[in-house]
Amino acid sequence: MRFVDLIEKKADGGVLSREEIKAMITGYVNGDIPDYQMSAMMMAIRLNGMSAEETADLTLAMMHSGDVVDLSDLPGVKLDKHSTGGVGDTTTLVIVPLVAACGGTVAKMSGRGLGHTGGTLDKLESIPGTCIEQPMEVFKDIVRKNGAAVIGQSANLVPADKMMYALRDVTGTVRSIPLIASSIMSKKLASGADVIVLDIKTGTGAFMRTEKEAFELAHTMVDIGTHLDRKVCAIVTDMDQPLGMAVGNALEVREAVQLLSGMIPETDPLYEVCMVLAVRMLVLGGLAADSEEAENMLKRAIDNGSGLEKLRNMIALQGGDASYIDPVRIDELCSVRKLVELPARRSGYISGMNAEGIGNAAQKLGAGRATKDDIIDPAVGLIMRVRLGDKIEEGDSICTLYVNDDSNLPEIMEQLYDAVRITEEPADTRPMVLAVI
Amino acid sequence: MRFVDLIEKKADGGVLSREEIKAMITGYVNGDIPDYQMSAMMMAIRLNGMSAEETADLTLAMMHSGDVVDLSDLPGVKLDKHSTGGVGDTTTLVIVPLVAACGGTVAKMSGRGLGHTGGTLDKLESIPGTCIEQPMEVFKDIVRKNGAAVIGQSANLVPADKMMYALRDVTGTVRSIPLIASSIMSKKLASGADVIVLDIKTGTGAFMRTEKEAFELAHTMVDIGTHLDRKVCAIVTDMDQPLGMAVGNALEVREAVQLLSGMIPETDPLYEVCMVLAVRMLVLGGLAADSEEAENMLKRAIDNGSGLEKLRNMIALQGGDASYIDPVRIDELCSVRKLVELPARRSGYISGMNAEGIGNAAQKLGAGRATKDDIIDPAVGLIMRVRLGDKIEEGDSICTLYVNDDSNLPEIMEQLYDAVRITEEPADTRPMVLAVI
Repeated sequence: MRFVDLIEKKADGGVLSREEIKAMITGYVNGDIPDYQMSAMMMAIRLNGMSAEETADLTLAMMHSGDVVDLSDLPGVKLDKHSTGGVGDTTTLVIVPLVAACGGTVAKMSGRGLGHTGGTLDKLESIPGTCIEQPMEVFKDIVRKNGAAVIGQSANLVPADKMMYALRDVTGTVRSIPLIASSIMSKKLASGADVIVLDIKTGTGAFMRTEKEAFELAHTMVDIGTHLDRKVCAIVTDMDQPLGMAVGNALEVREAVQLLSGMIPETDPLYEVCMVLAVRMLVLGGLAADSEEAENMLKRAIDNGSGLEKLRNMIALQGGDASYIDPVRIDELCSVRKLVELPARRSGYISGMNAEGIGNAAQKLGAGRATKDDIIDPAVGLIMRVRLGDKIEEGDSICTLYVNDDSNLPEIMEQLYDAVRITEEPADTRPMVLAVI
Repeated sequence: MRFVDLIEKKADGGVLSREEIKAMITGYVNGDIPDYQMSAMMMAIRLNGMSAEETADLTLAMMHSGDVVDLSDLPGVKLDKHSTGGVGDTTTLVIVPLVAACGGTVAKMSGRGLGHTGGTLDKLESIPGTCIEQPMEVFKDIVRKNGAAVIGQSANLVPADKMMYALRDVTGTVRSIPLIASSIMSKKLASGADVIVLDIKTGTGAFMRTEKEAFELAHTMVDIGTHLDRKVCAIVTDMDQPLGMAVGNALEVREAVQLLSGMIPETDPLYEVCMVLAVRMLVLGGLAADSEEAENMLKRAIDNGSGLEKLRNMIALQGGDASYIDPVRIDELCSVRKLVELPARRSGYISGMNAEGIGNAAQKLGAGRATKDDIIDPAVGLIMRVRLGDKIEEGDSICTLYVNDDSNLPEIMEQLYDAVRITEEPADTRPMVLAVI
């Protein structure tokens, strides 16, 4: 079978068989199918779509393109979560220890940040000594002892995705629901989880700009789970503003530590999203009978400090200085040359935030990477002082900037002013959690 | 501007500007845009289409990607014709001398055959000595003396098309009307013609399988002409059977010589199509006031032998042995080891022909190339003895095969039986000329 015939088939609106999809992925990874054919195929997929079955077959073929982690020798149901990349989203650092404190087994592989979005690995590395590269057996031992660990993806996890993503990035084929869904799900499945809870963000700071796209992606990923016999649940959440108040690496670890220490109210959006995701993990994993029981278990793990203890143990077992996992000592990691307030230029209501703009401002302060080779300053970033709908007086602080290098400060401040809209009347806001699918 | 943004624009259904299209073609030809981006763009064009203006801009950008032939120092309006590739289509060898005999200037660049379709250059080369590679000034001198010459395309004519076609062929992006139209028209325009008459074939032996596709292509090419200030006319013709009775190189030259000698009746399909195309050339070129006058001029050029004389002069001026351009002597070029008849296996009516199958059979006899490097036997091929709608008796000849190498003969004869359907009742036939656009 010639690959050009498969491209024609997809371009004509046809449906690819499991064998054809497998041949495509195998051929692309081993170099038999050149980039110029794969990019034409991916454009045909972007424009003509894929059926639920094709998307599941693609996920499966991608998953098996490299190493598949076998967690079957770890006790219990293996739980995982994934967020589609947001700003100020430190849910992983809250949920992983909290779920472990409730008896869950969370052997999580995570990623780095790029552009305006942060990455869990970068946040972990802001704690001195923490090593996110562990041999598989050491990783599993940590999970066995502690119920929770977070490392980077092994180099040979879903090589098809690395190749396809690099190509999609330069060929206008990123924005395809089946390609996005199979990219995420193939990595989750290759990481060995039985239960996967997904947080699909929508809004100004998210990959999925519209609710419609976010719902479609959520349904597609849940369908993949159904086809491949995994328990998958997707939550669609708002990313029209940073999820937490902190945007930056040590700053976000601090916010996670504060949450696990019971210092953040239940009405807080970060708290709310962490709770919804963790509840689904416990229920789908069979650790709680229902949402109510799960929520009570999680609140107890915050109240009695067992969640924070799990995070502390995890850092220690991964070689980090766990003494920083403390709401007071963590401040030392957030120490910078100067703090700069961003005063409101007018009074009114916070009626719009461009989360991507805020994420980019933090990145320019040194909290993120513009390119893969940039070096991160773990201490810098910003703390938002307002949320959507808040009333603000002229001169009040919109956010506090944590600055070490102030060479671009005026430009960054202007970018932040652009990202936060203040109007005379309050604007409508939508709930944080838009749907559970 | 990054090319990936242009791909996104087209994938989103947007319209590319003239500058963007020019940047695309320039960038692709000079190597700045890699194949994998160009193939994604061409798939987006295949699936989302192009506006009339975009298609004209693409044609213009491709035309200027290499040499543009300047025929302005030749006298009169420069006339050209193009057929989209058929079986038994020897219209060029009839029309070029005939139009020149009526006062037209035809400096034509032509192509070679591949697969089941024949090529004018291969037919010319079946006449000993004829050279289809001439320096531009020699070519123009021949046209100045004789009004007509046919050579191969210069190597650097529309290099963008050579690159794009090679890529389209392996990426499922051949079947795109804007890409087909701009490919053909860019070469015609770069060849310097003022008036272009197009013969778009539709049917079993044609690139455009359906009338709908053929009409769409015809309209698109006429629109390109309108946008770029050229006089363009398109005829949609039937290719549900070979156009002429001869399929093969010297055999088709013989049929052209017979037609120019007045030996083929006016009701013959080849005669009819040649006449329609040549009439449009004379009228659009201002050499005849209307179709009637043009037709009379053309018939006179057949009757008085001036058309045949033009062909003879052209062959002589291009180095060939013009004594073969004679209805008797031309037989010598069609001399083969054996003639084989294909007897009908049943009586009935010829109700279907697969022109592609017939073209492929001729190619296998040695009249065409399966790959670019194959060598052609100029004498071999076949002469059809029946046309669609004809009544035939069992044992009567369907066609005569001109054979030098009979190693694959049984297989070729079976292929011909498969290509000609005989039924009890006559089937509906459609007219040869379906539309003039």
